[in-house]
Amino acid sequence: MKFLRYGEPGQEKPGVLAADGSLRDLSGVTADLSGDVLTDLGALNVDPDSLPKVEGNPRLGPCIGGTGKFICIGLNYSDHAAETGATVPSEPIIFMKATSAICGPNDPIVIPRGSEKTDWEVELAIVIGKKAKYVSEADALTHVAGYAITNDVSERAFQAERQGQWTKGKSCDNFGQIGPWLVTPDEVADPQNLKMWLTVNGETMQDGTTSTMVYGVAFLVSYLSQFMTLHPGDVISTGTPPGVGLGMSPQRFLKAGDVVELGIEGLGQQRQDVTADT
Amino acid sequence: MKFLRYGEPGQEKPGVLAADGSLRDLSGVTADLSGDVLTDLGALNVDPDSLPKVEGNPRLGPCIGGTGKFICIGLNYSDHAAETGATVPSEPIIFMKATSAICGPNDPIVIPRGSEKTDWEVELAIVIGKKAKYVSEADALTHVAGYAITNDVSERAFQAERQGQWTKGKSCDNFGQIGPWLVTPDEVADPQNLKMWLTVNGETMQDGTTSTMVYGVAFLVSYLSQFMTLHPGDVISTGTPPGVGLGMSPQRFLKAGDVVELGIEGLGQQRQDVTADT
Repeated sequence: MKFLRYGEPGQEKPGVLAADGSLRDLSGVTADLSGDVLTDLGALNVDPDSLPKVEGNPRLGPCIGGTGKFICIGLNYSDHAAETGATVPSEPIIFMKATSAICGPNDPIVIPRGSEKTDWEVELAIVIGKKAKYVSEADALTHVAGYAITNDVSERAFQAERQGQWTKGKSCDNFGQIGPWLVTPDEVADPQNLKMWLTVNGETMQDGTTSTMVYGVAFLVSYLSQFMTLHPGDVISTGTPPGVGLGMSPQRFLKAGDVVELGIEGLGQQRQDVTADT
Repeated sequence: MKFLRYGEPGQEKPGVLAADGSLRDLSGVTADLSGDVLTDLGALNVDPDSLPKVEGNPRLGPCIGGTGKFICIGLNYSDHAAETGATVPSEPIIFMKATSAICGPNDPIVIPRGSEKTDWEVELAIVIGKKAKYVSEADALTHVAGYAITNDVSERAFQAERQGQWTKGKSCDNFGQIGPWLVTPDEVADPQNLKMWLTVNGETMQDGTTSTMVYGVAFLVSYLSQFMTLHPGDVISTGTPPGVGLGMSPQRFLKAGDVVELGIEGLGQQRQDVTADT
């Protein structure tokens, strides 16, 4: 199933994708796709084709609501680590993006004031469905509600040149597109074998696969749950493959007017206009 | 005014402290102390002595609800930087604690599995009342709903010895006591001149003052708002003075059975039993 949310920011309604590609209104079934609803999406007994069609072409919001934690994994593709001059870490590097950075899959990337190094990162996101604390790797996938695409937009100077800790360059408004869909695990045959790509103005920048991820989905859920309780709606963005602007020679960053498109096999795609915060 | 929340975790009711020190029930006035309510607490027109007394001796929850971001400032007291072997940063170091770490002021500190270096940090917390983006230092204080105490509990090995980024050692469950009260700015004559202290088993560990803070309250609100929008209920924990276990020789960390007490002048105090997650 492909769940989604549509409508104006902060007022999104739940929806689902029908077989014919149309959006269907899920608000008669559940008030939102957040919290405990994510623990057992099967209990909603959704038959998309029987639900009312959504009229028009509404904005898509982030595909889940009520995200309490937006956790990211750093340098989790060996070839991406290499391109940024870093080595593969001996255990996962984790950092947080502000949840206020979360926006819809096609909402603009907004270059913050003073930024000259706004960069892109296509990533596979894990959405937690069931509370997880001290879970084993063997049990980890039972805590996953589904998968989505994230663009872990990053300001490299804020991240690395403005005093330590990456949060500063990761948390700007509109730096966290999530969606278009929350795709349930039954539709993702193998999360460790998904093609992923990103283009800027039509030119391919990232062309990778989750098969080169260092620490996989089950390991990450288990690992993180040793440090903190994961709650329904929490998002784990699992790192990016090679091809970010920081790793190019010469380096290349986004400017107002650019168009970024990205996708992951089976999870849909995103499209973002780049604007500047003036 | 001293606002508070009481009741079982996740089911807290709003309250306020009366002149006689009794808790008064604010739930007839507002459903919670969160979101837009924090933007204009004066509009609640609260007369504590006219409100019903809360019976018994309920648990206190975190003094505000709906916290979207729990932002911390690192090494923000020059003498604390020195004791940890670091230099004062040329601009604020910021990092995030998971909001799932937030708990009440007297809830236990829970040592996570595998931890041998759980440490304490008394800190002055700023609670945001009004949305803030690109605000000037001159306007910054108009965005503050009030002040509270936080214990920025930290696992030093998770923070520094388990691959970079501090989040891992800062985000464990029950690592973020907030309260007892949200004290409104009219009752805090000068947030940069407050005595603060912390004891373990009655022995003084931290005995400082916010007057030695490197980057002050107004600067921090303005600074952070250049990177991301601050929303009502967001918490900024402003760093800790000297006296943490990491800085001692030999180092000293918490163990099950310890009792931690901490306070800030005018903002009340906290008391925590230390337990171990087995």
